[in-house]
Amino acid sequence: MTHRFCAALLAVLTAAPAIAADPPATPAAVVAQAPAAAWRAIPADALLVMTIEGGKRVVIQLAPAFSPRHVANIQALARAHWWDGTSINRVQDNYVVQWGDATEKKSMPPGLTATSPLDYAVPLANRRLQVTPLPYADPYAPTTGYVGGWPVAMDGTSAWLPHCYGYVGVGRNLSPDAGTGAELYAVIGQAPRQLDRNIAVVGRVIDGMANLSSLPRGSGELGFYTAQEHQVPILSIRLASDLPDAERPRFQEMDVASRSFADYLRLRANRKDDFYDRPAGGVDLCNAPVPVRAAP
Amino acid sequence: MTHRFCAALLAVLTAAPAIAADPPATPAAVVAQAPAAAWRAIPADALLVMTIEGGKRVVIQLAPAFSPRHVANIQALARAHWWDGTSINRVQDNYVVQWGDATEKKSMPPGLTATSPLDYAVPLANRRLQVTPLPYADPYAPTTGYVGGWPVAMDGTSAWLPHCYGYVGVGRNLSPDAGTGAELYAVIGQAPRQLDRNIAVVGRVIDGMANLSSLPRGSGELGFYTAQEHQVPILSIRLASDLPDAERPRFQEMDVASRSFADYLRLRANRKDDFYDRPAGGVDLCNAPVPVRAAP
Repeated sequence: MTHRFCAALLAVLTAAPAIAADPPATPAAVVAQAPAAAWRAIPADALLVMTIEGGKRVVIQLAPAFSPRHVANIQALARAHWWDGTSINRVQDNYVVQWGDATEKKSMPPGLTATSPLDYAVPLANRRLQVTPLPYADPYAPTTGYVGGWPVAMDGTSAWLPHCYGYVGVGRNLSPDAGTGAELYAVIGQAPRQLDRNIAVVGRVIDGMANLSSLPRGSGELGFYTAQEHQVPILSIRLASDLPDAERPRFQEMDVASRSFADYLRLRANRKDDFYDRPAGGVDLCNAPVPVRAAP
Repeated sequence: MTHRFCAALLAVLTAAPAIAADPPATPAAVVAQAPAAAWRAIPADALLVMTIEGGKRVVIQLAPAFSPRHVANIQALARAHWWDGTSINRVQDNYVVQWGDATEKKSMPPGLTATSPLDYAVPLANRRLQVTPLPYADPYAPTTGYVGGWPVAMDGTSAWLPHCYGYVGVGRNLSPDAGTGAELYAVIGQAPRQLDRNIAVVGRVIDGMANLSSLPRGSGELGFYTAQEHQVPILSIRLASDLPDAERPRFQEMDVASRSFADYLRLRANRKDDFYDRPAGGVDLCNAPVPVRAAP
């Protein structure tokens, strides 16, 4: 009975062509059937390609619209090859995988931008964001939705990126330090939304997440690897735009203003297919991720 | 700057004695300072001790008050040593680790109890639950709180266990099959609350979670290991009550009616210490787990 848990899901994933004449019944079917017009190319200079020990690749999509100063620094650090030879130093279960310069002695490249806690959210004054609302309650914010390919939490004055699974944030010292972007972490468990607006969120892992999430947990305090454990070498981190054309990954995100995304959200909140008896009637912001795919 | 992300958290974890005269400022400090009266022993027949390849141990706390039929079956299967020689067959990133009889041919022990979808929630009629409310919005349920050591979601007629990180559910075939309890999975990512009331939740991993969450992800559909991959052998699964006294793990859970738990919840929802600038003012049901500790 190994396969019982997911028999229906498997059927759905493989049945999309067969039911193409009907409206898609599941989020996976919506994504599989979404027209080309529902997808947007992710710019190559917003893709960070991390290669770790064993040649394993992790691709991170950066969010310059939400964290412009931190993202500019991360782009500068990648162009300076700053992370080459650094390592993954911390893996705390149900929390984060963190990487950077374990020696804490490596000098910064010139021209990094100063950051502050004001960079943790985008003020809404004098700007009109096109928001696709998520009409369900959120424990952490008055309203939530999607803007320009990203989930956002909002109050009356600002919008910010949530700490969802796979999302990437910037390590910092005690406030008012807001971090340069050289020390990064990715969330590997239940969304630690208490970090929202306390740390800069700069992007999300869109490929190779398992190369981070399945790493051995560190036995030191807060999951740091001890001297007896193996810090995972980072071979290189590059912007896709700086890679040779043949090595450049290409990804697309679903347009959050598209009909396909509206269908996807409705079905994420109301699963009703062969496997599900009782639709939830709602979905958490971090449990309805924006679909991303490799460019066909 | 490797340690910057968590400098303050580290201080908190190590500073509890130094600040014992002050009210605890963090959830970790509340747990560290909670008096003996705030803790309750977890019964040995509600502890499932799973030993996998390499002698790695995973301890699961069962929830007989919420899933009595499924838990009775799991206790019977453990007493029959049914899982010995089975394996972990599926690891899907940000979803579940699943184990059971990969051959799907192993016969069931006698005396298992019939189950149905009615077992997914506890009816509230003719019963008064002592609920410690969690007074924050939830995307999946009208109300949430804690009952008898467990987080619960509720509507006007029933209460059910949520699919939080580390929570254990029962694989099943298509409805109305509700599973016997022989095929189990543990959540290893963002809480898949859409499964609530669609599958039986029977407990939670309280020790050794990393032995499941750091397993290599399966490359097959839905994360099943392929023939070229390594199914992880399960050496044994026993009830702690059936182990020799010297081998028997002993754990305690925080009393959800205690002052310590109230302080813990308040601080989980309002982090305000050296590291946090901006308290969230709320917390997700799955982001405020009931503290569990090894018995001192």
